[in-house]
Amino acid sequence: MNFSYFMPSRIFFGAGSLARLGEVKLPGHKALIVISAGTAMRKQGYLDRVIALLAKGGAASVVFDKIQPNPIKSHVMEAAALARAEGCDFVVGLGGGSSMDSAKSIALMANNPGDYWDYIFGGSGKGRPVPNPALPIIAITTTAGTGTEADPWTVITKEDTHEKIGFGNDSTFPTISIVDPELMLSVPPHLTAYQGMDAFFHAAEGVIASCASPISDLYAFKSIELLARYLPVAVRDGADKEARAQVAFANTLSGFVESTSSCTSEHSLEHALSALHPELPHGAGLTMLSVAYFEFFIGKIPDALFEKMARAMGEDVDALPAAERPKAFIVALKKLIAASGLAELKLSDYGITREELPALARNARETMGGLFEVDRYTLSLDDTVAVFEKAWR
Amino acid sequence: MNFSYFMPSRIFFGAGSLARLGEVKLPGHKALIVISAGTAMRKQGYLDRVIALLAKGGAASVVFDKIQPNPIKSHVMEAAALARAEGCDFVVGLGGGSSMDSAKSIALMANNPGDYWDYIFGGSGKGRPVPNPALPIIAITTTAGTGTEADPWTVITKEDTHEKIGFGNDSTFPTISIVDPELMLSVPPHLTAYQGMDAFFHAAEGVIASCASPISDLYAFKSIELLARYLPVAVRDGADKEARAQVAFANTLSGFVESTSSCTSEHSLEHALSALHPELPHGAGLTMLSVAYFEFFIGKIPDALFEKMARAMGEDVDALPAAERPKAFIVALKKLIAASGLAELKLSDYGITREELPALARNARETMGGLFEVDRYTLSLDDTVAVFEKAWR
Ligand SMILES: [Zn+2]
Ligand SMILES: [Zn+2]
Repeated sequence: MNFSYFMPSRIFFGAGSLARLGEVKLPGHKALIVISAGTAMRKQGYLDRVIALLAKGGAASVVFDKIQPNPIKSHVMEAAALARAEGCDFVVGLGGGSSMDSAKSIALMANNPGDYWDYIFGGSGKGRPVPNPALPIIAITTTAGTGTEADPWTVITKEDTHEKIGFGNDSTFPTISIVDPELMLSVPPHLTAYQGMDAFFHAAEGVIASCASPISDLYAFKSIELLARYLPVAVRDGADKEARAQVAFANTLSGFVESTSSCTSEHSLEHALSALHPELPHGAGLTMLSVAYFEFFIGKIPDALFEKMARAMGEDVDALPAAERPKAFIVALKKLIAASGLAELKLSDYGITREELPALARNARETMGGLFEVDRYTLSLDDTVAVFEKAWR
Repeated sequence: MNFSYFMPSRIFFGAGSLARLGEVKLPGHKALIVISAGTAMRKQGYLDRVIALLAKGGAASVVFDKIQPNPIKSHVMEAAALARAEGCDFVVGLGGGSSMDSAKSIALMANNPGDYWDYIFGGSGKGRPVPNPALPIIAITTTAGTGTEADPWTVITKEDTHEKIGFGNDSTFPTISIVDPELMLSVPPHLTAYQGMDAFFHAAEGVIASCASPISDLYAFKSIELLARYLPVAVRDGADKEARAQVAFANTLSGFVESTSSCTSEHSLEHALSALHPELPHGAGLTMLSVAYFEFFIGKIPDALFEKMARAMGEDVDALPAAERPKAFIVALKKLIAASGLAELKLSDYGITREELPALARNARETMGGLFEVDRYTLSLDDTVAVFEKAWR
């Protein structure tokens, strides 16, 4: 039952909560606002609203608008230089996980010397200690996917070496996070599904990780329950405010799971996929791996973990013979994937060939080997390839 | 579903976690260690261990050992002066809620001018803004009662005016909290019961408070479930490590409830009792008020609140006719009180007379009126007296 707990972000949750940005004490006087290269933040009017709310709180703004769906190190370095040149003293990430993660990494590099990869553990990262804390970070999420608003983690890809690696320390927890489900109403069905499944796996991996604890389980099982119930509704009808709010809440809970337990090697496997195939959405990659991945662990780690997740997803586990119970989770997972419109996803449709699976397995283990260490059963390289093979079609 | 979340304390939970004090980066170089006037912290060896662990982390210590079960303002002022005179730059509260609450208030006054009551809202408090943050606080709990390790609140009595009032701001969250159930093994059964019931009411009041939210409910229902199941076990067999750990976890969750929802007027009523009768333990006072208090709200606030709490406590609510379901909570509450050995508690045994109940009701409303504002049904003065009358015997 031993655990440590630290999640110091101040979270404002709920429909209309973006307005709180104009009421709180801001952590600085000039913000670098980080948004994606897409047009949504401007078209939806979110960027203008954020600039106006910051101004109301006495802060000027500069915008960096180049972030890609799989955010890259060169943008982190470019934006950090801009923040320094402009004298920004805090960073606002507005958008999905890529913009918020970039904001964290930019805030770190705006206040530290050298190259971002100097501080990365894993792959070709130098793993050096970080001299200074990140600038204060405000995370404003317009999707329900990564839970990054409630954890310290940021995932950035080094483009030239195809390494997609996570980083985080105490200073990369957002100072303020805003989770306003009204900002999510316009997310299209397929992205809603990908992002919601990402949140689901943050919770489910958090349960099967060896560092799970009573507090991380509290968050994880509630997140799993809510996503099984409400994600299909939000995918079917994006205007359903109740479903959007429940999915947003589940996603924030999954962020708490990230802060109190950990992702497992499923995320290492997916990072390899999307590092080498940047057009593959993270949540889609996880979804395509998931059935093979979780099935691999049945019989190798306690059945109760799967049974509890299946129960949280509404399966009548206790009606089954004991030997069938852990598989009820796989049944529930397949139902959720199908109900979220993702049953037809195929790795080959994203250009991933069967031949490259061994190389992907090696990339996963080299760049994100740390997550293999929190698995309750340690995958060999052969096991890793086998999971990829089973998931591939 | 709107809520805000902020609980920045770093919590180390679990058997043996006191050792973490010797491994963490301490928030200063010289600690004022605040303990009760009793002998337990020395006899059990906890004080020596804490001094040694702080020394391991490079911090010197000074001890203030006068705290009473209902801690008083004059000790806050005396200890704050000592902290300043000794050059202490952080404060360690070691013991039960009274020592940890005192540590918070001392940390505040060690870094601020004037009198503690200058900053208190309610009663004769002047409600002035606090110029400076509190010194960093480390909370080490040796009981499972107040949840103060996971909230910003401190409750201090002004002895001359018999006012027992809460205070808290962002700086009175502990920087580090240690919840080591091994330190609780020697708490005698009656104190285990009082403290556990206090934790229970922090959760149950947090559910019926108008500011309850999905996140506070997540903590509260789990706390209620664990206390209903494990508190009687911990009372019966104090050496049961599993029960101690579960009760300690429930209590910490109740602290999260305090940080995300609120106590209700039950706490105002109890503060009046123990402000005027300082020998009355807080948890005993709450227990004696509780059946009358919660019964008062049945039919006035949504039935579902009581039904969900009853379900969490193991009652087969759905087997009952609809009209009986909310009362299942009262049934479960009475069972818990009896199973914790508290069925025979009587207000009159603590010298509280029927005649003084109107004065107690006025004290409750004058000193802790704020909590009446989070009740979902607003008690009149007559209602308040009526609850006291019904609880009295
Ligand atoms: Zn993810
Ligand atoms: Zn209390």
